[in-house]
Amino acid sequence: MKYVNGRIEEIKIAYIGGGSRNWAWVLMGDLALEGRLSGTVRLYDIDYAAACENMDFGNKISARTDAVGKWKYEAVEDIVEALDGANFIVISILPGTFEEMRSDVHLPEEYGIYQTVGDTVGPAGLVRALRTIPIYAGFAEMIKKYAPEAWVINYTNPMTLCTRTLYAVYPEIKAFGCCHGVFEGQDLLCHVLKEICGIEGVRRNEIKTNVLGINHFTWIDQASYKNMDLFPVYREFANRYAVEGYEMNEKGAWEKNVFESANRVTMDLFRRYGVMAFSADRHLVEFLPPWYLKDPDTIRSWKFRQTPVDLRIENGRKCDEYRRRVIAGKEEFKLKESGEDGVRQIKALLGLDDFVTNVNMPNVGQMEDIPLGCVVETNASFRMNSVRPVFAGRLPDDVQNLVVRHVYNQETILKAALTRDKELAFRAFLNDPLVNLGIKEARELFERMLKNTEKYLPEWKV
Amino acid sequence: MKYVNGRIEEIKIAYIGGGSRNWAWVLMGDLALEGRLSGTVRLYDIDYAAACENMDFGNKISARTDAVGKWKYEAVEDIVEALDGANFIVISILPGTFEEMRSDVHLPEEYGIYQTVGDTVGPAGLVRALRTIPIYAGFAEMIKKYAPEAWVINYTNPMTLCTRTLYAVYPEIKAFGCCHGVFEGQDLLCHVLKEICGIEGVRRNEIKTNVLGINHFTWIDQASYKNMDLFPVYREFANRYAVEGYEMNEKGAWEKNVFESANRVTMDLFRRYGVMAFSADRHLVEFLPPWYLKDPDTIRSWKFRQTPVDLRIENGRKCDEYRRRVIAGKEEFKLKESGEDGVRQIKALLGLDDFVTNVNMPNVGQMEDIPLGCVVETNASFRMNSVRPVFAGRLPDDVQNLVVRHVYNQETILKAALTRDKELAFRAFLNDPLVNLGIKEARELFERMLKNTEKYLPEWKV
Amino acid sequence: MKYVNGRIEEIKIAYIGGGSRNWAWVLMGDLALEGRLSGTVRLYDIDYAAACENMDFGNKISARTDAVGKWKYEAVEDIVEALDGANFIVISILPGTFEEMRSDVHLPEEYGIYQTVGDTVGPAGLVRALRTIPIYAGFAEMIKKYAPEAWVINYTNPMTLCTRTLYAVYPEIKAFGCCHGVFEGQDLLCHVLKEICGIEGVRRNEIKTNVLGINHFTWIDQASYKNMDLFPVYREFANRYAVEGYEMNEKGAWEKNVFESANRVTMDLFRRYGVMAFSADRHLVEFLPPWYLKDPDTIRSWKFRQTPVDLRIENGRKCDEYRRRVIAGKEEFKLKESGEDGVRQIKALLGLDDFVTNVNMPNVGQMEDIPLGCVVETNASFRMNSVRPVFAGRLPDDVQNLVVRHVYNQETILKAALTRDKELAFRAFLNDPLVNLGIKEARELFERMLKNTEKYLPEWKV
Amino acid sequence: MKYVNGRIEEIKIAYIGGGSRNWAWVLMGDLALEGRLSGTVRLYDIDYAAACENMDFGNKISARTDAVGKWKYEAVEDIVEALDGANFIVISILPGTFEEMRSDVHLPEEYGIYQTVGDTVGPAGLVRALRTIPIYAGFAEMIKKYAPEAWVINYTNPMTLCTRTLYAVYPEIKAFGCCHGVFEGQDLLCHVLKEICGIEGVRRNEIKTNVLGINHFTWIDQASYKNMDLFPVYREFANRYAVEGYEMNEKGAWEKNVFESANRVTMDLFRRYGVMAFSADRHLVEFLPPWYLKDPDTIRSWKFRQTPVDLRIENGRKCDEYRRRVIAGKEEFKLKESGEDGVRQIKALLGLDDFVTNVNMPNVGQMEDIPLGCVVETNASFRMNSVRPVFAGRLPDDVQNLVVRHVYNQETILKAALTRDKELAFRAFLNDPLVNLGIKEARELFERMLKNTEKYLPEWKV
Repeated sequence: MKYVNGRIEEIKIAYIGGGSRNWAWVLMGDLALEGRLSGTVRLYDIDYAAACENMDFGNKISARTDAVGKWKYEAVEDIVEALDGANFIVISILPGTFEEMRSDVHLPEEYGIYQTVGDTVGPAGLVRALRTIPIYAGFAEMIKKYAPEAWVINYTNPMTLCTRTLYAVYPEIKAFGCCHGVFEGQDLLCHVLKEICGIEGVRRNEIKTNVLGINHFTWIDQASYKNMDLFPVYREFANRYAVEGYEMNEKGAWEKNVFESANRVTMDLFRRYGVMAFSADRHLVEFLPPWYLKDPDTIRSWKFRQTPVDLRIENGRKCDEYRRRVIAGKEEFKLKESGEDGVRQIKALLGLDDFVTNVNMPNVGQMEDIPLGCVVETNASFRMNSVRPVFAGRLPDDVQNLVVRHVYNQETILKAALTRDKELAFRAFLNDPLVNLGIKEARELFERMLKNTEKYLPEWKV
Repeated sequence: MKYVNGRIEEIKIAYIGGGSRNWAWVLMGDLALEGRLSGTVRLYDIDYAAACENMDFGNKISARTDAVGKWKYEAVEDIVEALDGANFIVISILPGTFEEMRSDVHLPEEYGIYQTVGDTVGPAGLVRALRTIPIYAGFAEMIKKYAPEAWVINYTNPMTLCTRTLYAVYPEIKAFGCCHGVFEGQDLLCHVLKEICGIEGVRRNEIKTNVLGINHFTWIDQASYKNMDLFPVYREFANRYAVEGYEMNEKGAWEKNVFESANRVTMDLFRRYGVMAFSADRHLVEFLPPWYLKDPDTIRSWKFRQTPVDLRIENGRKCDEYRRRVIAGKEEFKLKESGEDGVRQIKALLGLDDFVTNVNMPNVGQMEDIPLGCVVETNASFRMNSVRPVFAGRLPDDVQNLVVRHVYNQETILKAALTRDKELAFRAFLNDPLVNLGIKEARELFERMLKNTEKYLPEWKV
Repeated sequence: MKYVNGRIEEIKIAYIGGGSRNWAWVLMGDLALEGRLSGTVRLYDIDYAAACENMDFGNKISARTDAVGKWKYEAVEDIVEALDGANFIVISILPGTFEEMRSDVHLPEEYGIYQTVGDTVGPAGLVRALRTIPIYAGFAEMIKKYAPEAWVINYTNPMTLCTRTLYAVYPEIKAFGCCHGVFEGQDLLCHVLKEICGIEGVRRNEIKTNVLGINHFTWIDQASYKNMDLFPVYREFANRYAVEGYEMNEKGAWEKNVFESANRVTMDLFRRYGVMAFSADRHLVEFLPPWYLKDPDTIRSWKFRQTPVDLRIENGRKCDEYRRRVIAGKEEFKLKESGEDGVRQIKALLGLDDFVTNVNMPNVGQMEDIPLGCVVETNASFRMNSVRPVFAGRLPDDVQNLVVRHVYNQETILKAALTRDKELAFRAFLNDPLVNLGIKEARELFERMLKNTEKYLPEWKV
Repeated sequence: MKYVNGRIEEIKIAYIGGGSRNWAWVLMGDLALEGRLSGTVRLYDIDYAAACENMDFGNKISARTDAVGKWKYEAVEDIVEALDGANFIVISILPGTFEEMRSDVHLPEEYGIYQTVGDTVGPAGLVRALRTIPIYAGFAEMIKKYAPEAWVINYTNPMTLCTRTLYAVYPEIKAFGCCHGVFEGQDLLCHVLKEICGIEGVRRNEIKTNVLGINHFTWIDQASYKNMDLFPVYREFANRYAVEGYEMNEKGAWEKNVFESANRVTMDLFRRYGVMAFSADRHLVEFLPPWYLKDPDTIRSWKFRQTPVDLRIENGRKCDEYRRRVIAGKEEFKLKESGEDGVRQIKALLGLDDFVTNVNMPNVGQMEDIPLGCVVETNASFRMNSVRPVFAGRLPDDVQNLVVRHVYNQETILKAALTRDKELAFRAFLNDPLVNLGIKEARELFERMLKNTEKYLPEWKV
């Protein structure tokens, strides 16, 4: 790396899961739009062919004249080649395949357990974590060996447990996890400003929030725009829209697009708890007892949707086609800022523009009364070679209770996965609020789910 | 008070709830059996007549020749008279009447929520706490004013919240809560020694345990008899008896006596969690999701019983009659050591024999990762004018999760009760693991329960 | 207050010590240069005449055409009038007069104790604190009563104890203390960049530092400029200049101006401890054993100076004359940015531009292993109506030891001053590293110093 | 080991430093007097001949008819042989020889630094620690490998750092450090009871104390005998005797015996600080600035003595002769209880009689605001296979300040010794309150002291 006239050149980024569709392209786009950085991105993926396609995809973007940031993309077959000498490591992988995910998400439905996403908590999140943790433990070992000083940015879910595993295995690692969950809440507050105050055109990072919680279950106890306290404003908004819902895009979109919702859950939670729950409805509901996920009718009444795994498969297929078209020059990648923080974080870590944003990191006291070391999501100050949590304070007891339950469960899952302890994993399973079953039924479901993911639990006695 | 030749005289004890049947008589009996202490016990009760009867009852005992400890019992009409100059304050009250308790325990059954005791957690425990906390806040104010240096021993349930309220209102109070829950576990281990090792005649205080948790949901991660580790021994026992159960008294007793059980739950928990749950089955089950309390059949299959409030009323009536018979000289009070720690604690606080036993006190670090100030149950060292918690360590994550959920809920209930915040109380209600309902149903039950106890919530808007 | 088109109007600032020369004018100048804020500043001072002069002084500035920020200055005779409705409260006072300060600083010289500044620690700092704490306790009471929601910015020394007193008396206060000590270190690093790397024109707030410690004894364990780690650079600098010294302004300035130094102490400390001490040499030396303050020769050899109180008196006189000349229009106030953070902080608290800077606030965990509640200096994130400490980490054990000694001593002084406990104050006196005396001698000096400041300790038995 | 009828047989004790004179014989005597324990003691010492002599010495005792505890003593040449299968490990060694100790204690006198004992803090304690820590690191490694489950009892000084090193190297070790320092304070309180209250015959363990601090600098904030608070009693005593002194044995003994004193320092400290300092005067003075150690005249005026190393050598010689006489049957070992806690602790750890006593262990919260992990001395509850600290609370700020200074310095010394970091060791040296020198002089003394102990710092660059 060298600093030349306000620019930093020869940066080396290792991308683990480099064949990835979504996150890799977001990064490529944002890098192309940032003229002050350049270097090499090494794409490593267990699907080497996908990494190669992304190499072509990335170099295609980089070659464009409107790409002011110039990067060289290289697919590599060996993770060591990617890591060696890396300044930054980006990780976004799919642990297992969509077949395992199908079991994670849909099998519990036979037992009356409905899940919307299935990547973080609930039976699906737990089983996904059991697959993912050993993989991340392996990454941590490699990073310790080959790139101990690199900054690691994680995008994979379960976010908390991926980040936690990296620190558990290599405590000196410089890692954090990023998710746009909070940004969606900030987007909603932009709409609130428009609807209630008639203020238009506010960008989401003009909304200042104090973030507390864990990924996909983050809470906000202070929110402002300029010198305006957004709590009374949002209260008015929620009172107006809580029953019928409020959709940020077109009306009824939630019925067409599984990723949309009418924000009824987040408004309902705000009215009950007095603090804002800042993640999409489809994520929030999975952290709670089956209040909103009792059955398909209940789900429908709250105006959000489950994400069927078939849809994910279909989306994946479309992405692959799109990538091929872009590589073949039949379609052009749309170059615009993604709104993600990744490249901005990289810049700040390189000393270019420091800022404060929310990230997932081990608790060093930024959240009161959460055990030290557990991964939490709060704001942090990004500066040259440092990410330092900002003191976020304490959730109200009743909300802390909802959060801490998952904090302990995630610690339990971590230990179960690292020690291949099936009984401990089952005890975590029992502690999940969605697992509203008797012990026998719970056991049966757990065994069946584990069986279906057996291939990814090689050292376990399933 | 004065110390004379190894004896302490002129001790003043205030007994709040001095008309109490059970606890007052236990204390009277144990005081009568301890020759090194003497003084006055002032009995205060909102039922002054009951206090007067206990005065007669106590003085009757004290007059007996086999009573080596001589005490004078006085009923007083004003709490100030009881507190003024007291060295010790004992509190055991019934918050509300059995009519309120009937609603607490049985109304939730209409919603499929079955409770066994209903004095600590669950819907019943919560509503009982709402009644009790303001009363205890009043006690704390009076103690601060009239007996700030006295040691306060609490026997009332909900134990945790009674003790917690005393400290919340008067932080310098010298108070602790006592319960024989742990002793019952120690009794079971005496049986274990007999059944597995053939060792007979062991007394419960020869069983040494490291206690962690909260009242009625205490856990043991180390237990020994002489130099024998009782964990492997108990494992063998549990493996042998978990399915059919083990009754400490006669076989089948649990079917006749609601206070008996076959210890199936405690053995089941040990086999699942690897640490011992040390309280009667009927208490333990109320802290958990409805694994053991799903419905009457499930309850029966686990061989424990619910305590119907009618039975409590009937028992109360019998106690009244018995008291009258004793006073009239028609029956004699049976003078024998109760096995309770109260008098032993008083002696230790007076510098006579120091010892280590389990009590309920605010966390100053004796339980790791439990917020400071919350009341927990661990061992403590009793010495002249001091009770100092012994460091108990940390529960395993999965068990800590079960416990901490109630810790936060109890803090929530405390705040709700102190500020008469109905919505906060409802949020605590929702967080209880037995409240396995949708939000609407939960609301309806909550409103009905509160209505039934309205008389004891005078400053609330019910 | 109202927000209009990116500007905030009708802000109310209360200035306690409003007759102040230095700090008041700095604020006036910076407010005049900030076009996005306007309102009223009420100047309160026990010297009402001085407040009136500052009123004229301030309004003179505000009337200038180059003053884009328009403020109305009003002198008030009653502190309540100043506080009532205030959004911000600025405090900069002189506790006592220069006569008391003369005793504080110079009397210890009779005992071989030499002090350079005498406003923070050492015998002088302690006695000054005893005078100041009751005054600040009074401010805190008034703020609680008349402006409980206002943000309080303290500039008075002893900084730590002034801020600590505000929180001790009114724990919910929104207060922080500001000092340019760290800025001076940043200025030195700008020189380092020039001397070692040939980089010129860097501004001090382009130097990013992680701040840990207590006011005037702050340490830096990470410093950067762009993507450059400044530690190796500073090491080279210190190796080059530690012996002869390095002066930021003209060579030999330290011999003419008592506020200058050759930075020999800060370089010496860096070479010994490996972390940077970031305050002027004249402040740093007072926190240490008399390594650098043994006697006048030692002081001279390290190329810094003591500040004689006569000089302060003389400076004060000159300032008064200057103020009169400005008011009379005979001289013009030089309008330029002061480099102080005050106005920038006010803007951030109003939601205009958030930023991270160093402040003095109670420890909520931002400094590891420092008792909670003690005031420390670290970075904090300033945003709309919030100042949240950034996690700073832990000093190395050897440096922590030097710092923590003052932390405990300041807590001791606080208690002594609040309870008028002379013996406790003496025990704090004994614990100061500059008090290198036998107990008898120490006692004599302490008594004499207290006698000399007796007038400001009205409730004490001196 | 096996438990038979209330006795435990076949216990294996490893004694490292098994040629030791004092501590080994104390243990032998106490074991001989305890009829419920028996087994083997393996004596390991780098001076194998001394271990052999102790073997004969021990077996001689064990063979006596008045020795009810029967033990077999074996000298072993290899530490592994001693550790293998050990249930308990006792360590009491001399790190280096008296020649090194001569430099430690007396060389600083050339610089005006007078030390009384020189085994814990001060220049002598520091240099002794540098020698000892690597040796203890080695022990910890061996214990981890060969006796990971054994309980380790340390008697070597510096007590804190020996115990701390064991935990630093092998964090799961079951170790604690024992010292009779607190017992001496309890003995003094027995005298106080006699002198002030006329109560005779009180034994030291009837005095109940709450212990806080670090070894040889422990403080007591609560002391009682039966139901008597000893604070007012001791105050009267100190007021009466502080000036002339009080000697527990014959008057003027301190002038003849260097281990005696007139307790003037401990009384002076109590009168100044209001809490009791519980260690011999000769130890206490070394932790403080040179208030009591300024020069030989000052020392004399306080009526305590320095321990010259020549005297230690002479004593050692006498002990050797005595041992030979005992072995040869020319003199008989006097069999009486030593008053040390070692054998009582062993019994409690074997489940025989549990009790509470003071020990040195890592802080898990038993002392508030002391960093976790640092070794502190407080009470602990001894039970079968467990030693659990009792919550001791917090020292007053002014005393905490005196203590914490050494806590951090000991941590600094630990790191310096483990990493052979001479500069760090020097920074610790500078932080010692007795090192009342300029930096240059301090450096010179430090270098000379290190040179004299060079042989025991083989991996250092001295």
